[in-house]
Amino acid sequence: MKTRAAVAFEAKKPLEIVEVDLEGPRAGEVLVEIKATGICHTDSYTLDGLDSEGIFPSILGHEGAGVVLEVGPGVTSVAPGDHVIPLYTPECRQCKSCLSRKTNLCTAIRATQGKGLMPDGSSRFSYKGQPVAHYMGCSTFANHTVLPEIAVAKIRPDAPFDKACYIGCGVTTGVGAVVNTAKVEAGANCIVFGLGGIGLNVIQGLKMVGANMIVGVDINPDREAWGRRFGMTDFVNPKDVSGDLVAYLVALTDGGADYTFDATGNVQVMRQALESCHRGWGESVIIGVAESGKEIATRPFQLVTGRVWRGTAFGGARGRTDVPKIVDWYMDGKIEIDPMITRILPLERINEAFDLMHAGESIRSVVVF
Amino acid sequence: MKTRAAVAFEAKKPLEIVEVDLEGPRAGEVLVEIKATGICHTDSYTLDGLDSEGIFPSILGHEGAGVVLEVGPGVTSVAPGDHVIPLYTPECRQCKSCLSRKTNLCTAIRATQGKGLMPDGSSRFSYKGQPVAHYMGCSTFANHTVLPEIAVAKIRPDAPFDKACYIGCGVTTGVGAVVNTAKVEAGANCIVFGLGGIGLNVIQGLKMVGANMIVGVDINPDREAWGRRFGMTDFVNPKDVSGDLVAYLVALTDGGADYTFDATGNVQVMRQALESCHRGWGESVIIGVAESGKEIATRPFQLVTGRVWRGTAFGGARGRTDVPKIVDWYMDGKIEIDPMITRILPLERINEAFDLMHAGESIRSVVVF
Repeated sequence: MKTRAAVAFEAKKPLEIVEVDLEGPRAGEVLVEIKATGICHTDSYTLDGLDSEGIFPSILGHEGAGVVLEVGPGVTSVAPGDHVIPLYTPECRQCKSCLSRKTNLCTAIRATQGKGLMPDGSSRFSYKGQPVAHYMGCSTFANHTVLPEIAVAKIRPDAPFDKACYIGCGVTTGVGAVVNTAKVEAGANCIVFGLGGIGLNVIQGLKMVGANMIVGVDINPDREAWGRRFGMTDFVNPKDVSGDLVAYLVALTDGGADYTFDATGNVQVMRQALESCHRGWGESVIIGVAESGKEIATRPFQLVTGRVWRGTAFGGARGRTDVPKIVDWYMDGKIEIDPMITRILPLERINEAFDLMHAGESIRSVVVF
Repeated sequence: MKTRAAVAFEAKKPLEIVEVDLEGPRAGEVLVEIKATGICHTDSYTLDGLDSEGIFPSILGHEGAGVVLEVGPGVTSVAPGDHVIPLYTPECRQCKSCLSRKTNLCTAIRATQGKGLMPDGSSRFSYKGQPVAHYMGCSTFANHTVLPEIAVAKIRPDAPFDKACYIGCGVTTGVGAVVNTAKVEAGANCIVFGLGGIGLNVIQGLKMVGANMIVGVDINPDREAWGRRFGMTDFVNPKDVSGDLVAYLVALTDGGADYTFDATGNVQVMRQALESCHRGWGESVIIGVAESGKEIATRPFQLVTGRVWRGTAFGGARGRTDVPKIVDWYMDGKIEIDPMITRILPLERINEAFDLMHAGESIRSVVVF
């Protein structure tokens, strides 16, 4: 079939809206009509050529929502008409990781996904007879895409696509870091570094689970209002702190935070996040993706005296199991998404969405088909 | 009263056996006759002047066992005749840390203990009219010492002093790292870096909880027999591995270890220990104390993909609660101590014990009074 897609033909060039060819689903695969997709920093990271493993031409996008149109042989968990969210972290429920009960990082299709291919080693997309690569196993910048069955989460049909798509990455990453990775308990004092889309979702996750202090840290004063909008109790602008930021935050949180979250990707901030933790038990969770080659460091004494350093990917969520729950939380009003969707654009204007993100003027832009 | 003690009059000099004056216990304090004491690297670290906060003159030693002779006003949890192990990590059961249920790092007397003083800010020891400092709240290199009530663990009377003393530091640190900090489950694959006294106690802790692979890593081939003696299943000498040690260990443990332990104090080894963990869930525990100023580092990707970096002090044990249990485990044959006590010496020969430790020829030397 033919479908419209925003194709990344080469690094550092705008996406081009063209009509591509899409093969139907093979065994264990599903054809999904994408209704809406968010634009995430990770797409930009690849488009800007910063990802050394980036592949071109490819169809980017990994934060979508849509409807199953057709299923290949052997598919049993979804059927045409089902509403789904594509999963860049699949959940096969059969690999060592899925069966470990300790991680969401399913390894069933990791090798081919990293190469921009379907699990059988081929691409379903082509343009003028030449293959076009898949991206993060999703390629939601196409109006139609083919996905492995293990990489779609079936969600309730009453969730609006242009909001639910954000659960495909940003919402789950932030809220899940609180719920699945840190397992924050009611009454905890917490600090969130970086109040972009991920940081705001961490904040609303903390509010949902009943955290006590929810301290937001950002050098952009405009973010204070955003943070408070979602439950932040205290705002700290490092530029306004005279002296050591860590000492300031430790004092503010009565000895240090029970949990801290880095949503900046800056390795110096990651260190501050760890060292702002309470002696004896404070845990710091790295969410942000650092520039390649950068390293985190600290004195081992920080860990020997009880602080814990961990990280999270896709909020520790097992996609098929946990994503539908987060959709429920949104529909039940436990978390908010609508005010975070600051712009909705048609596919033709997708490059504007990248510009808005780079300008820091949007929390999340969504493209609808 | 008068008592014999090995006094550290100044850094980098041998201890001197002299008769010192000891005041009796004040309110909340107990007088203990030390029957046996281990010699630990931490004592040596201070004696060698490497600890910038070391105080002289002082009476070192923090790994002892003895009998309560007298208690001060208000002491209710121990009585004369009770057998006890002094605790350099006390357990007041009232401070924020003790009440957190998340750490063993009681802070009740931290400030004065660090200054070599009793909680009221004074020393009980003196020599020729001049005060002599306490050390780590214990000073077990004296035949008699005064301790805060919250810093003694009452143990069963049938445990031999010259073995039980090792539970005051080394045994608890190693076994506790497994049981309290990592909470290793049966069937786990584990790697222990450094097969000194602490590493061997980690190994026997892993054996006790039913670990599957217990891999020991040491550059000293003589340690292989020691490791196997206590339950090690595989030995790796990094000098015999061609290529990358981490890749070798990851392959050996089928994707990486579920838990790794650093018992070397070397920050490069700490990094290897983290990176030898299994993607998705492997946890690395730092036990060793690094040289001052040294830092640990890794790529944040190691944490984002599910590895966890933590540390432990005194094996995460709450002294008064957990130390008596470890004494029971020893008396019940669940763990061994006897073969680790490689030398028993009288107080007069305590400097020989330091020489043996530096020569790497002993696992643990114990001094008896």
